[in-house]
Amino acid sequence: MITALAGGVGAARFLTGLVRLVKGEDLTVIVNTGDDIDLFGLHISPDVDIVTYTLAGIVDEEKGWGIKGDTFRCLEALGKFGCEPWFNLGDKDLATHMFRTGLLKNGFKLSEITVQVSRALGLDLTILPMTDDKFETRIVTESGSVHFQEYLVKRGAKDEVLGVEFLGVESAKPAVGVVEAIMDSELVVVCPSNPVVSIGTILAVKGVREALKRTGARKVAVSPIIAGAPVKGPADKLLRGLGLEVSAFSVAKLYSDFLDTFILDTADSAEKGRIEKLGVEAKVTNTIMKSLDDKIELARTVLEG
Amino acid sequence: MITALAGGVGAARFLTGLVRLVKGEDLTVIVNTGDDIDLFGLHISPDVDIVTYTLAGIVDEEKGWGIKGDTFRCLEALGKFGCEPWFNLGDKDLATHMFRTGLLKNGFKLSEITVQVSRALGLDLTILPMTDDKFETRIVTESGSVHFQEYLVKRGAKDEVLGVEFLGVESAKPAVGVVEAIMDSELVVVCPSNPVVSIGTILAVKGVREALKRTGARKVAVSPIIAGAPVKGPADKLLRGLGLEVSAFSVAKLYSDFLDTFILDTADSAEKGRIEKLGVEAKVTNTIMKSLDDKIELARTVLEG
Repeated sequence: MITALAGGVGAARFLTGLVRLVKGEDLTVIVNTGDDIDLFGLHISPDVDIVTYTLAGIVDEEKGWGIKGDTFRCLEALGKFGCEPWFNLGDKDLATHMFRTGLLKNGFKLSEITVQVSRALGLDLTILPMTDDKFETRIVTESGSVHFQEYLVKRGAKDEVLGVEFLGVESAKPAVGVVEAIMDSELVVVCPSNPVVSIGTILAVKGVREALKRTGARKVAVSPIIAGAPVKGPADKLLRGLGLEVSAFSVAKLYSDFLDTFILDTADSAEKGRIEKLGVEAKVTNTIMKSLDDKIELARTVLEG
Repeated sequence: MITALAGGVGAARFLTGLVRLVKGEDLTVIVNTGDDIDLFGLHISPDVDIVTYTLAGIVDEEKGWGIKGDTFRCLEALGKFGCEPWFNLGDKDLATHMFRTGLLKNGFKLSEITVQVSRALGLDLTILPMTDDKFETRIVTESGSVHFQEYLVKRGAKDEVLGVEFLGVESAKPAVGVVEAIMDSELVVVCPSNPVVSIGTILAVKGVREALKRTGARKVAVSPIIAGAPVKGPADKLLRGLGLEVSAFSVAKLYSDFLDTFILDTADSAEKGRIEKLGVEAKVTNTIMKSLDDKIELARTVLEG
């Protein structure tokens, strides 16, 4: 049994390699839902969908999210009502949000629905949201606290980050299966995702960090920071906003209380020593995933621990 | 000032003629919302949309509902989740439901949203839902009570109608402007719509029937029944289910406590005498609306009272 902790695009790319080496039935992916947002009455789970679409082979690979070849008729029509939709919603993609929202209204849990969606799209691995409860990542900016999607998509991650808030963190419980998967695994992989708003949220859910400390699994993380910058997304701004250094070392430090092995890019080999002083084994390899072969090779390194 | 009471397709066709003769600023259309339904988390107002789309010139004229040239990508994708959507939702049409649902979630009233939608689509008349409150028309069948849309669309109006229920009728108040429009008009037109589940619902909203009795307006209805059958829809089954005769006379009788003039088709001229015995003036004319000229001609007859 292998469990992966995942955010969106970076995690999904990494997992594309991992699923070539591991049977679906042996893999559980726990996905960040701090980015989830209700728009136009629909419940949208961006990271869950990115992981699901990517592994199902239907993601728009160029963008890293959405469904390839999707049309945007509904979104265009929404624009005519003068409500300027800042969040991209393809017509096929909408079906996922509607299916999810309809079942939520009928009392199903997000975790149950996520499994249904992934099965309908032909996946045999288990994708779990980190929690079925309300958990909302908000970014504190000079103009106030805004939903993470508003910070990222609507405002283009341009605001200075003054802080990060996790609304609901006091009461959100891990979805059924999350702690169990961590405890029952031989390997827990922390995907190359944003350490603050993707992995940091999962770790903040009550009981998850404790499970990672208690489990007998080997715990391996892949750095999302290469040569002092994230491959994608605003991890640099968020780390800086929290007063942290933007480096592989900085990420390793955030995980050092539970982590066994940290995999960093050859570009950051100079940080190996600093990371090992945290009590974490540091492995240097190529972590840039351009081709499928790169992804499989990186997954193989992770599996070898 | 003219006020029209309207259901869906039949009313929308009639109003297409009326708006050629009356200024938008002088016309208020009060629309049935007993058919409204929540699907996939979205609030759908079928009759409001049919009237709005038709008068905005974007309706799919062949079907009488939906937007012409619309695509169904989202609906097709929903089918892949195995949830068999029995209600047709075009991609552009969805934008209306999403816009409406989003604003409802933000505390706007259905009546406020309906005005916004109609203005965005270029209309200058006032379209009002009969109520902003919960009001649900249910059909009692041998297999239990079902939502009207389920009876009509999902089950193809095939069940024997054992009764009709209006959930919420005890507490639903007329939307702001509904009673005012009736009281301030010189003419109230009852469109050729289903007398039970389109007009009957509007009349059942507290205060509407009383306003129709008290207003100084002339009240004219157009028969939805021609030669013993509805032009469209299941009015015959519903009338029969309530133990009523399926005839123009039967409809006139349902409105006779407030109506001044009933316009019936030449095919039903034999009923003129019976209707006039109800104390209602009966006018015989062609009520079949095939061409725009037919619609304008019928509207002219109504305006002449």
